[in-house]
Amino acid sequence: MKSKCFKLSAAIVSTATVVGKKEHEGPLSSHFDFFSDNDRFGQKTWEAAESEMQRMALSYAMRKAKVQTEDVDVMFAGDLLNQCVGSAYGLLSYDIPYLGLYGACSTCAEGLLLASSMVTASFADLAAAVTSSHNTSAERQFRYPVEYGGQRPPTGQWTVTGAGAFLVAAMKNLNVNTPPMAYVTAGMPGIVLDLGINDVGNMGAAMAPAAQSTLMRYFKETDTSPKDYDVIVTGDLGWEGGRILCDLMTAEGMDISDRYQDCGRMIFSKNTQDTHSGGSGCGCSATVLGGYLLPKLASGDIRRMLFMATGALMSPDSLKQGNNIPGVAHLLCLESPITEKGNL
Amino acid sequence: MKSKCFKLSAAIVSTATVVGKKEHEGPLSSHFDFFSDNDRFGQKTWEAAESEMQRMALSYAMRKAKVQTEDVDVMFAGDLLNQCVGSAYGLLSYDIPYLGLYGACSTCAEGLLLASSMVTASFADLAAAVTSSHNTSAERQFRYPVEYGGQRPPTGQWTVTGAGAFLVAAMKNLNVNTPPMAYVTAGMPGIVLDLGINDVGNMGAAMAPAAQSTLMRYFKETDTSPKDYDVIVTGDLGWEGGRILCDLMTAEGMDISDRYQDCGRMIFSKNTQDTHSGGSGCGCSATVLGGYLLPKLASGDIRRMLFMATGALMSPDSLKQGNNIPGVAHLLCLESPITEKGNL
Repeated sequence: MKSKCFKLSAAIVSTATVVGKKEHEGPLSSHFDFFSDNDRFGQKTWEAAESEMQRMALSYAMRKAKVQTEDVDVMFAGDLLNQCVGSAYGLLSYDIPYLGLYGACSTCAEGLLLASSMVTASFADLAAAVTSSHNTSAERQFRYPVEYGGQRPPTGQWTVTGAGAFLVAAMKNLNVNTPPMAYVTAGMPGIVLDLGINDVGNMGAAMAPAAQSTLMRYFKETDTSPKDYDVIVTGDLGWEGGRILCDLMTAEGMDISDRYQDCGRMIFSKNTQDTHSGGSGCGCSATVLGGYLLPKLASGDIRRMLFMATGALMSPDSLKQGNNIPGVAHLLCLESPITEKGNL
Repeated sequence: MKSKCFKLSAAIVSTATVVGKKEHEGPLSSHFDFFSDNDRFGQKTWEAAESEMQRMALSYAMRKAKVQTEDVDVMFAGDLLNQCVGSAYGLLSYDIPYLGLYGACSTCAEGLLLASSMVTASFADLAAAVTSSHNTSAERQFRYPVEYGGQRPPTGQWTVTGAGAFLVAAMKNLNVNTPPMAYVTAGMPGIVLDLGINDVGNMGAAMAPAAQSTLMRYFKETDTSPKDYDVIVTGDLGWEGGRILCDLMTAEGMDISDRYQDCGRMIFSKNTQDTHSGGSGCGCSATVLGGYLLPKLASGDIRRMLFMATGALMSPDSLKQGNNIPGVAHLLCLESPITEKGNL
């Protein structure tokens, strides 16, 4: 039987991040490239604002890498909006072949996994992965318009207003103008799991078993264990889902709690920003990876990291029709180009 | 600059198709594997019926190829429903790594392109691509519930109730139990184009320029021309969009009209089934490719074919907000395992 872990040989050579007001006020404020103090980015609708974030992120990532549109061979993009219009309109101005994804909040890892696969296989020299979420467009689509003032449960999460773009190059063909920030050395697509959670106010619980499944499969297939990685980070399990993941892993004899992080926990202050269980959305893991974690890999502060973006694959309609929330988690192993061991 | 045409070395080894009542009554009736005479497939909701079609299609494709779940290394799937729930729930019972796509009606080609890329690159020995659409779930999401009895314009298309599943194996590792139906020798992801069409009753016109763009790029990059292919087939441009594509190609000095076909034209009878400009939806190109075209490649009746599934990447909300309909077309070159030249 074929290994379901992809051996990758790719390098993330550039990234750019764009966030909203609340994210700019959070603990990672200084790490993001752009922000809007009214979350509108000069647009008339929240959906157009989300598209504009994607356009800005890719534009700046390309500018940092000193590459032009024609240098990017293919791009992968997706978001949470119906029919993924955040990506379709946001990237419309780029004459780059476009492959649309839907992985909910796992899209950042899915896009990076596919972009890394394409460059490893020499189908592309340079590939882009872009994703976004917007709190206000997500609230009115998935829950209520914010004006409604609906109460959120303690396990509820706050959809991040943010977009991240990444440029991925083949290791054997690093003809780009910037040094690599991190190598992508392995990837593992997740299996969709439904363990009976149907509470849209507790997405962390719905996604945690999928993260455990991918992580356990990865450790088994690579014959590694948590101690082989400086950091194991999930996309948006938040405080609730992250606790569940650590418990599930401990029950399997694989304690990860001393090196576990979650982007949804990092992007907002637990004490001063009222986001309950933390951040969520495609933009959560994308902005924290791009703005905060990749620079730490680039500097050698993190040497080897597992990054798992987690997604909940339901729709508002599917829940009304009595379905549960299926979860998925895609994994990437990211390594520093600096070889000396460092600490987070 | 890197070629944006992927050289692929993959084989479609199995396919299965599931359709609804109207498709079963159409000219290709005998070519599909399963149908439901009330479009419900034993389910309580149209959305669950769509999921069930995907489940059935993949199950039968695997059965035909005599493979088990663990033999399939990765699957690509997507559909038209918000958050792609047709795929997420339809394929939930398979313990196969899942990478979700959103390409609207181009999903069949996008999934086959990525599945073929993954096996060509040895990331997978066997990959699946699955997609679906359902007339009734699509009508109520994109237009009106059918009970409303809305009038459709002459350029309007009829969303196909259908699902197709494909199994793709690496040519260098054809350890499957069935002979290949067709080789996938090249693929080209499309660039998203917006030429100002905003009439949801004329999707063919919105998608035709994207098909022209991909086709012209492909001919240029491969130094081939229409005469090198027995058939050039699009997914669901229909009567209106297909005519526009032929006109656009003729204007470029590349007349394709003598070998042009469109799945949306083939699946319904123009004279006896009231579908106006023809069929559409992810399931349109998937069922016509799987049920009708692949067997013709397998038998050598078609020797070399270009298959382009076309997608319109708008949402009902994006149109209400004043946006146009962006189109995309992904291309595959499919070749017969039978080497003698044949005719359609």
